[in-house]
Amino acid sequence: MRKGRASLEFENPPVIESSAAVVGKKEGEGPLGQAFDMVEEDPMFGKKTWEEAESAMQEKACRLALEKGGLKPEEIRYLFAGDLLGQLIATSFGVADLEIPLFGLYGACSTIGEALTLGAMTVAAGYGERVLTVASSHFATAEKQFRFPLAYGNQRPYSATWTVTGSGAFVLADREAVKEKRRQEKSLQRKSGPGSPGLAVITGVTAGKIADIGAKDSMNMGAAMAPAAYSTISRNFMDFQVDENHYDKIISGDLGEVGRTVLLDFMAAGGYDLSKVHMDCGIEIYDSSSQDTHAGGSGCGCSAVTLSAAILNRIRSGEWKRVLFVPTGALLSTVSFNEGQSIPGIAHGVVIEHRRAEESQEE
Amino acid sequence: MRKGRASLEFENPPVIESSAAVVGKKEGEGPLGQAFDMVEEDPMFGKKTWEEAESAMQEKACRLALEKGGLKPEEIRYLFAGDLLGQLIATSFGVADLEIPLFGLYGACSTIGEALTLGAMTVAAGYGERVLTVASSHFATAEKQFRFPLAYGNQRPYSATWTVTGSGAFVLADREAVKEKRRQEKSLQRKSGPGSPGLAVITGVTAGKIADIGAKDSMNMGAAMAPAAYSTISRNFMDFQVDENHYDKIISGDLGEVGRTVLLDFMAAGGYDLSKVHMDCGIEIYDSSSQDTHAGGSGCGCSAVTLSAAILNRIRSGEWKRVLFVPTGALLSTVSFNEGQSIPGIAHGVVIEHRRAEESQEE
Repeated sequence: MRKGRASLEFENPPVIESSAAVVGKKEGEGPLGQAFDMVEEDPMFGKKTWEEAESAMQEKACRLALEKGGLKPEEIRYLFAGDLLGQLIATSFGVADLEIPLFGLYGACSTIGEALTLGAMTVAAGYGERVLTVASSHFATAEKQFRFPLAYGNQRPYSATWTVTGSGAFVLADREAVKEKRRQEKSLQRKSGPGSPGLAVITGVTAGKIADIGAKDSMNMGAAMAPAAYSTISRNFMDFQVDENHYDKIISGDLGEVGRTVLLDFMAAGGYDLSKVHMDCGIEIYDSSSQDTHAGGSGCGCSAVTLSAAILNRIRSGEWKRVLFVPTGALLSTVSFNEGQSIPGIAHGVVIEHRRAEESQEE
Repeated sequence: MRKGRASLEFENPPVIESSAAVVGKKEGEGPLGQAFDMVEEDPMFGKKTWEEAESAMQEKACRLALEKGGLKPEEIRYLFAGDLLGQLIATSFGVADLEIPLFGLYGACSTIGEALTLGAMTVAAGYGERVLTVASSHFATAEKQFRFPLAYGNQRPYSATWTVTGSGAFVLADREAVKEKRRQEKSLQRKSGPGSPGLAVITGVTAGKIADIGAKDSMNMGAAMAPAAYSTISRNFMDFQVDENHYDKIISGDLGEVGRTVLLDFMAAGGYDLSKVHMDCGIEIYDSSSQDTHAGGSGCGCSAVTLSAAILNRIRSGEWKRVLFVPTGALLSTVSFNEGQSIPGIAHGVVIEHRRAEESQEE
């Protein structure tokens, strides 16, 4: 196992065996709409409160990810989960019924990166055949907590982002466990069709440090998070002794248009040209011209649902051989903000690579 | 590595190499007062806000733990940290200056159990020679967030607990790294005296599931958390095929007097008699008769500072050979509480054992 200061490379890269993305109506109307597993038209998800709605969405994403993998909750060793709400209440009330031992995580909108990092470390170490990772955000719970009551109808500057209503869940599995599962499915003839797609595996991780350049505008979180993305991406390059050409895509979480510009400028100053390989989930998820989302999408759900719906398929197919996935988080609360504190950022990097499915069936 | 459904046993148990406990004035006046590394008389820790005070306390605990181990921040691979505040602001603003890659955790008052669990998993897997784990709570930030303004002077029922102002930090290290460090110190003659004490090592962990029996009284969190403690302790017994006689002490985090009674009743119904081996950090930390703390102490800091100040020394000395340390958390927020939700609990179990120091120096 090669180790850098913040990075790990796995000898036995865990497989992202299955995943699911559940989103709200607005996300369903966006450019990725067709790719999500479930678009819920009711923002309340049939519940009485916004928070319960987010919990229901998170549980739904978990159950769909399990179902798509032909798995039951009891086959999952550990659950790594988080959300944006104080004391992680969307998670606490969302995943309890799964009865899986839980590690609650908070990394703001970088949470799915943190969950995939710790989940991959756990599976690669042989601590369990399978773990589940999940993160969620809901436009209404986030607005209620961080900004203004929805009914107030406040105006938003163009640098502001729109919190994604969505939850993405991912089953990480040991390669041998995936092979065994496929053998079983083959013998049961439950799976056929035009050849299995390839696999998406996590070959390495770069855990993020807090980056704080003193940004104080809570309506411009992209600028607050960009230094964290820069820190983690350049750390990844140094630890693995690579540069931007090593990756087919370097994908940030929710920098949006403003944050993207800052990141590209920072990287250029560091001698890297990210313009050709960079993509941002916050920019991909909405059509800013027609959906009035200003700088783009944000929230824990943003990068999670985009990874599940629009990134993993391209890695599995081999269109992208190697991707650096870097969800970004802004570490603020209304308390710290109102007390005049800055907005620190954090970003966790996950290296996801294509592997041929045959390898897993024949080797 | 023997594995149960929620437990892991480590082939190479990480060593708790050093630790520190920083507390407030009230904790300093309690039964453990003399054992803490630092008692800060100023509840503001020299800062302008309660939250900044908690951040300063958390950073102080980290730096003291490093100093006591003769370590610098750059020798630490990863930091596992958390607190009770929304969006973990005590942590985000507390540990940034250490510049260690950070995993933000939320497990309510069980957070140090979660941090020790993930930290031990990381070191035991060989992902880093050393990691740092820390958790904190502050009476004033917790009251402000969860209950009433301090100036309101509300009355508290006897089932209520008192949030500990304190932060405990722990360096977990690979056994070989500890040996190497001791060799260096010996050759530098920096350490001498009447023989090194023994070591405290983490031999296993039992990650907790959410336990929710529908408790709704936020002034009686002990009762809400006891089922989680029961769940984790009995899971530990099953996974390792042991019972209460396996441990010299089974130490819960902050159940307090009410929660302790519930736990002992639950365990008795399950066929276990915990009365002789059970201890609760929340009961130990204050003198309830003179300190007006009602059911006992609580908060992330409660179990963390008690572990550092009053448990590890007894394990290192060999007075206790094997301890099951089970910090307990109540997963509620004012939002979920006001919306009529119950208070789920979670508890993470860490098995800490005595090892002779000679082993580490001579083997």
